Amino acid sequence: MDAGLMRTRVGAARVGELATADAAGRPHVVPVCFALDGDTIVTAVDAKPKTTTTGLRRLANVRAQPAASLLVHHYDDDDWTRLWWVRVDGTAEVVDRGPVRDDAVALLVAKYAQYRAEPPPGAVIHVAIRQWRGWQWTGP
Amino acid sequence: MDAGLMRTRVGAARVGELATADAAGRPHVVPVCFALDGDTIVTAVDAKPKTTTTGLRRLANVRAQPAASLLVHHYDDDDWTRLWWVRVDGTAEVVDRGPVRDDAVALLVAKYAQYRAEPPPGAVIHVAIRQWRGWQWTGP
Repeated sequence: MDAGLMRTRVGAARVGELATADAAGRPHVVPVCFALDGDTIVTAVDAKPKTTTTGLRRLANVRAQPAASLLVHHYDDDDWTRLWWVRVDGTAEVVDRGPVRDDAVALLVAKYAQYRAEPPPGAVIHVAIRQWRGWQWTGP
Repeated sequence: MDAGLMRTRVGAARVGELATADAAGRPHVVPVCFALDGDTIVTAVDAKPKTTTTGLRRLANVRAQPAASLLVHHYDDDDWTRLWWVRVDGTAEVVDRGPVRDDAVALLVAKYAQYRAEPPPGAVIHVAIRQWRGWQWTGP
């Protein structure tokens, strides 16, 4: 999949799946709202009700192991020729406060109406994209 | 989310996101078709056209680091109160041949019409579920 199409699809996606790993290398995956900004992905631990464990796990993982991977994909049960996915791999950082965090929240608020009503109150995860990978059905 | 509902949702899901990690603990995530069988998830590297890298990465990861995590979720851009996810964490194994592999392929063929036309030809990943986690919107 060409670079422009990967970028368009990630930019347009409303939800992705963020994979992180803990210090022992055990993977973890959670759905996230996110925004693409150049070669950066930002996502926040937002105010959607969640368990403490859920909210903190991804932050603890990123602090222990900065490699992270975000997947965006389309599934169509009736027609597998329409399937595609794009994955960005990068280096993640937890940003608790300051302009990088505030800019990330501004991007999220601009993208999601729900965030305008209630902006993410806490830390953001900032992922510097190192690699784009994409796949789509291209025939047997 | 109660155990029965988590099981129902994972059993009914047509696609999930499988997170693995490599020997260095770097996460990887890919959409997968899968089947739930008791406390086991099975998925195959199927015949959908893919790069060699894509097909082999998850297998190499599982061989290096048996921890794996499968996410199933529902996203609704208009109504975040409908969001839910279920994640199963477990111990994965690559099974190249034999009755475990053949039983897994039979489950996948039973679940997906596309696999009836072209059964997955290769290895399967067998995940023994160690932990179920679920979340759904429960109000602010």
